[in-house]
Amino acid sequence: MSTSAEATQTPAQAGTERLYNFSAGPATLPEEVLLEVKEELPVYDHVGASIMEISHRSAAYDAVEESARARLKTLLGLGDDWHVLFLQGGASMQFYQAPLNFLPPDGSADYVITGRWGQKAIKEAQLVGTARVAASSEDDDFNAIPAVETWDLDPDAAFVHITTNETVNGNQMTDDPVLDAPLVADASSELLSRPMNLEGYGLIYAGAQKNVGPAGVTIVLVRDDFLQTRTQPLPTMLDYGTHAAKRYNTPPVFPIYVVEKVCRWLQDLGGLDAMYAINQRKAALLYDRIDRNAFYRGTVRPEDRSMMNVTFRLHDEDLEPVFIEQAKQHGLMSLKGHRSVGGIRASIYNAMPEDGVEALVAFMDDFERQHG
Amino acid sequence: MSTSAEATQTPAQAGTERLYNFSAGPATLPEEVLLEVKEELPVYDHVGASIMEISHRSAAYDAVEESARARLKTLLGLGDDWHVLFLQGGASMQFYQAPLNFLPPDGSADYVITGRWGQKAIKEAQLVGTARVAASSEDDDFNAIPAVETWDLDPDAAFVHITTNETVNGNQMTDDPVLDAPLVADASSELLSRPMNLEGYGLIYAGAQKNVGPAGVTIVLVRDDFLQTRTQPLPTMLDYGTHAAKRYNTPPVFPIYVVEKVCRWLQDLGGLDAMYAINQRKAALLYDRIDRNAFYRGTVRPEDRSMMNVTFRLHDEDLEPVFIEQAKQHGLMSLKGHRSVGGIRASIYNAMPEDGVEALVAFMDDFERQHG
Repeated sequence: MSTSAEATQTPAQAGTERLYNFSAGPATLPEEVLLEVKEELPVYDHVGASIMEISHRSAAYDAVEESARARLKTLLGLGDDWHVLFLQGGASMQFYQAPLNFLPPDGSADYVITGRWGQKAIKEAQLVGTARVAASSEDDDFNAIPAVETWDLDPDAAFVHITTNETVNGNQMTDDPVLDAPLVADASSELLSRPMNLEGYGLIYAGAQKNVGPAGVTIVLVRDDFLQTRTQPLPTMLDYGTHAAKRYNTPPVFPIYVVEKVCRWLQDLGGLDAMYAINQRKAALLYDRIDRNAFYRGTVRPEDRSMMNVTFRLHDEDLEPVFIEQAKQHGLMSLKGHRSVGGIRASIYNAMPEDGVEALVAFMDDFERQHG
Repeated sequence: MSTSAEATQTPAQAGTERLYNFSAGPATLPEEVLLEVKEELPVYDHVGASIMEISHRSAAYDAVEESARARLKTLLGLGDDWHVLFLQGGASMQFYQAPLNFLPPDGSADYVITGRWGQKAIKEAQLVGTARVAASSEDDDFNAIPAVETWDLDPDAAFVHITTNETVNGNQMTDDPVLDAPLVADASSELLSRPMNLEGYGLIYAGAQKNVGPAGVTIVLVRDDFLQTRTQPLPTMLDYGTHAAKRYNTPPVFPIYVVEKVCRWLQDLGGLDAMYAINQRKAALLYDRIDRNAFYRGTVRPEDRSMMNVTFRLHDEDLEPVFIEQAKQHGLMSLKGHRSVGGIRASIYNAMPEDGVEALVAFMDDFERQHG
């Protein structure tokens, strides 16, 4: 890969160094984890092959998957009444699979729509049965989360679906409501970023590629008593019960292997209480800078802002492409807002170090001095 | 990872070297591919992050996925009328997804059952609609493939489902039949092992973890005119049309990245004609050894034997655990037959070098001398 031209370049120019990566997902992973993966190629732990090349029924792989499962349970405080499943297809598949399991043909489910992903979720549920909008902030461009007290809940709902963090719109629901019906939650972009009160939840799902690992594995947490309420019969692969009972088919081995390492990293760091404190500091630092004056403007009202996906605009929106490009030159990558909403989005997941947020804030100050 | 005890061990004892890996899947990958992956951690091609950490809409990732797609098309000789999709959930998900798309509520599909995977496939189809057994070798313990002329085909079948290679039972169908109805084929354990005559196929699917890459991505090839016959409406993620139209959601980035490298390795080696010649030599070498005398016994009749999964028994079946254990000590790993059938299975996919098969044959000779 090296060329003679590179010999005179700095590491940054040669591209051999890591930048601060604000990608919304797939997203930055702890460098320690990547270096361990590197070390374990092409032979994993004395087994004669890499982790990708051994049977998913082998003792070596089994230990990895069971460790990932146990660590997730410990981190989240999940008791024996919870199953931890490693599925595929991302949250997009869960949008269909969850109602397929839990929305009976003659029943109804309530959906709280706080952004783009919730909109997608209800669309798939409506292919299965009756899915009602119990609350929505669409009229406010999803810059807020409707208060729980205002949700128009059906007392007979099979479940209430929420999106605890809306990655595109930049809002987050951290109060873990406890309602009459079990919560089914898309927690893709916030799972493992904070301790959760699990009392009200029946099912929590998350594409891993934000805080938990690489793309290609979907974390599904399901409480056993809720699992038992699912409709029957179901296609084997779409039945959560299949995967709760045993390792049914070949799992996405490599992504799960990385998830195990990320969980270990998180435990070494002190678990979710410690991580939450760091995440709150990072978010406060960035939002404080945004709110300091009118040069930058947050898109979500303060009480509903996401700790993970910090969405903002420049007072002069024409400067946004310049901001994104100059940031890249300063080693701050992937700050462009989602194509459907524009603006700036800094995703500051668990693996984004505080130094990265400080570097972004310093750049924002510089940029304001240049262009303010 | 290193301990003082290891200092006096040979590399083989210390477990730092790669063994010949006969795992049925996840299976051995070309060592060159693994070393490239290693080199590209923790920074991929000057982008400031690893391939796992960048947006699936970025130019860098897009180039990888499009290269994988183009290489698969070139290798298999797929024209513009074919779509190459990278899905998730393995063949097990395809067992349901294929009939969901192509078996109309008032229609019927024909299934040819030549092993364990075909049995699983028809079970899922029967949840969707009418799926008939057009032929089966179950009464012969799947040690043969019924001749095409004997298949009891329905002239109105929406499709005919075949399993071109049965991984557990060790048989393979290499004649690519052309029937009145389009073929839907599970080619999981043989895709890319030989050139195919695509004329009769409408849909071909394969879990990658045999010849194509690591677990976590499913290769789906669908011909456009067949795609247009699918039923509507379908859940978004289960509709092949969703994925044929665009990159809908986050794909399994890392597995696809490895698939791209495996395809490049295969092209460098000379493509599928060259690979097929090597695979035929490897299989002939092993089957010749099995057939030499009665000490070993192939489980499938010669004309239907798999080039990929070589299943055999020892004359004295009680010696099989000893054979498997001693082979491991000789650097030949994962030779145990599938738990449902027992015996020995040597999976000799594309990435198994001829040296590995020669080493296995030499070990089989030694073992016979010891125990014959």
